Amino acid sequence: MEIINRSVAIKDHVEGAPEESDFELRTDVITAELTPGSNDVLVKNLYLSIDPYQLNRMKKYSSSHETSNYAAPLVPGKTIDGYGVGRVVASAKAGFEKGDLVAGVIGWEEYTLVHEGTMLNKLSTTEFPLSYHVGILGFSGLTAYGGFYNLCKPKNGEKVFVSAASGSVGNVVGQYAKLFGCYVIGCAGTKQKVELLKNKLGFDDAFNYKEESDLKSTLKRYFPDGIDIYFDNVGGEMLEAAVSNMNLFGRIAVCGVISEYADAKVRASPNMLDVVYKRITIQGFLAGDFISQYADFFALTVGYLRSRKLHALEDISIGIESIPSAFAGLFHGDNIGKKMVQVAEE
Amino acid sequence: MEIINRSVAIKDHVEGAPEESDFELRTDVITAELTPGSNDVLVKNLYLSIDPYQLNRMKKYSSSHETSNYAAPLVPGKTIDGYGVGRVVASAKAGFEKGDLVAGVIGWEEYTLVHEGTMLNKLSTTEFPLSYHVGILGFSGLTAYGGFYNLCKPKNGEKVFVSAASGSVGNVVGQYAKLFGCYVIGCAGTKQKVELLKNKLGFDDAFNYKEESDLKSTLKRYFPDGIDIYFDNVGGEMLEAAVSNMNLFGRIAVCGVISEYADAKVRASPNMLDVVYKRITIQGFLAGDFISQYADFFALTVGYLRSRKLHALEDISIGIESIPSAFAGLFHGDNIGKKMVQVAEE
Ligand SMILES: NC(=O)c1ccc[n+]([C@@H]2O[C@H](COP(=O)([O-])OP(=O)(O)OC[C@H]3O[C@@H](n4cnc5c(N)ncnc54)[C@H](OP(=O)(O)O)[C@@H]3O)[C@@H](O)[C@H]2O)c1
Ligand SMILES: NC(=O)c1ccc[n+]([C@@H]2O[C@H](COP(=O)([O-])OP(=O)(O)OC[C@H]3O[C@@H](n4cnc5c(N)ncnc54)[C@H](OP(=O)(O)O)[C@@H]3O)[C@@H](O)[C@H]2O)c1
Repeated sequence: MEIINRSVAIKDHVEGAPEESDFELRTDVITAELTPGSNDVLVKNLYLSIDPYQLNRMKKYSSSHETSNYAAPLVPGKTIDGYGVGRVVASAKAGFEKGDLVAGVIGWEEYTLVHEGTMLNKLSTTEFPLSYHVGILGFSGLTAYGGFYNLCKPKNGEKVFVSAASGSVGNVVGQYAKLFGCYVIGCAGTKQKVELLKNKLGFDDAFNYKEESDLKSTLKRYFPDGIDIYFDNVGGEMLEAAVSNMNLFGRIAVCGVISEYADAKVRASPNMLDVVYKRITIQGFLAGDFISQYADFFALTVGYLRSRKLHALEDISIGIESIPSAFAGLFHGDNIGKKMVQVAEE
Repeated sequence: MEIINRSVAIKDHVEGAPEESDFELRTDVITAELTPGSNDVLVKNLYLSIDPYQLNRMKKYSSSHETSNYAAPLVPGKTIDGYGVGRVVASAKAGFEKGDLVAGVIGWEEYTLVHEGTMLNKLSTTEFPLSYHVGILGFSGLTAYGGFYNLCKPKNGEKVFVSAASGSVGNVVGQYAKLFGCYVIGCAGTKQKVELLKNKLGFDDAFNYKEESDLKSTLKRYFPDGIDIYFDNVGGEMLEAAVSNMNLFGRIAVCGVISEYADAKVRASPNMLDVVYKRITIQGFLAGDFISQYADFFALTVGYLRSRKLHALEDISIGIESIPSAFAGLFHGDNIGKKMVQVAEE
């Protein structure tokens, strides 16, 4: 059986902020007949995760390229691989059957032929919307969990600051932190996002960083007693301002530095005198480092979802054609919550 | 009994690199009669520790001022307090007797009246030269020990880089690291220091950073397989270059950033993309955080000294008048090893 497969690739390497015109949508015909013994699985993709880190893969050179499989550089003209959820169409692999729902590394395309060795797992429950397995129960959730509980080492009552707080990872971090018993303030780039953080997600306070001219004083105003934990999604000036406002023995989990992805000239110059004297820890991590904690993460998060203590914030575009704008929009703050593209009806 | 006491103070706050003319030498007459019940101890100072961090105390404002007692701002015209070794001249405190050798927070002066609540300990051994208790068995040694073993979490065979490696803290870190089983390279600011590191202190290699134009490539050349541990004494460009050359899960102990003390415009802008993807930890500390490990530190270090595996590198100037030049010299790399001023004969 032949299948028409539409897919997305970069035309060329992308160096600055991504634009829709950086991408091409191609149409191929693929076969659904799998080679027996190949262990291949053909997946019909349903929800694709749209993530900022892909921009680093699109660069011709980035020091990140050699650090993990997920960071490997993208090749112009070749379909972009990424996390998502789909349904098995055909399987040459034991344990996977036609109709199974799966999550794993698929592609920015309608169908992906997943080869042996690529992460692919059957969904363990259908209790929640499928999209949750891309976001809050997928890598975004695991990122928030791994970074917050492991790196930030929260203590009850501590003061937590989260940047890109209405984003996919940030909103979950803030909610975990509140549920843990911390005092939590987030920042985001629009008034609407700020209202959402305060009124819907239970943040103690929130502010629009685009309306602030001196972030160091802004943070001083919001944290008169200092910051114990900073969960950094953006880097740059915000990181500098946070370092200035950290308390003794403060912890900074550097999850990502989106303000530096699209502009190599943006760099944080944190005051290292503060790092020494305040004994600050600044630590980077990748979600994959915490895969061994997946069961704990899943149990905690599912429990919170069931008791409606945790809110899944999602932002879903429809159709493969929407991928370029969905991706470019991450760098303009277009998304609220986990950005995904639904490429097919369930 | 009246005693003539000469002491050193700053004339005014010092903002840039310190110069000899920033200091004044004063002469006072003090009394050796202590108020009974006061718990005061009058100490005749023998060796004074000359430390870079004092420059931060000399500034009118530094974010470091509020972070610990030792970091408190200095007042122009008032004697500078600091670590050192001396002999008790008179005591109103139980447990301290005339003639006892002590180490603790005394002052840049010939005699210090040590009040209750100020750190003062009797020396536990006279097996080693007195000066060792200021340097390798004092705070410099504890700094090296605390930072290396606790923050750097060394593993056998790991690649270690130390900056200001012929300095007081740096030389001990390098020697501990070698004795632990690491591969160790240091940098320093003269040819003579580099030779010393290689030929006398057992470093695997060393280089003169002042002869290098691109520190990032220099480190790449010296560490073709990357750096696992960076013990940072200098900050600035060297920190940036180290971050670029760190291996996955590398650890950076930020002990001090001397290149940033004398020039507020010098700042490190480490590539945070590296920090994220390589899961680097950058952590500041103060020696005082490890005071509870003093016994372990002392036992290990004394053991190494006895078996002549560890070399005590000292740089001693004579006389209270030499304090200003000794201190200013730290910022020009004049010292080799622990800088001290001997203010009186033992
Ligand atoms: N370490 C890991 O394993 C891991 C895993 C997932 C994600 N991450 C990182 O975590 C961060 C958030 O990722 P996400 O998936 O949750 O994305 P997201 O936050 O849902 O989307 C990106 C958001 O970043 C903000 N932003 C964009 N450009 C910015 C700039 N120049 N300065 C400040 N904020 C900017 C925008 O919100 P505003 O309206 O607030 O500006 C935008 O909505 C990223 O840095 C990402 O690379 C790391
Ligand atoms: N965290 C703590 O508790 C603690 C305790 C003690 C010391 N420290 C810090 O550790 C570092 C070393 O202190 P130390 O007592 O061992 O002093 P030191 O290394 O014995 O003396 C300072 C040395 O730093 C180097 N230096 C001076 N200016 C420099 C510059 N602009 N760039 C690069 N190197 C420069 C010079 O050596 P070169 O010839 O190599 O340039 C100089 O000899 C300092 O940053 C200090 O503040 C921290």
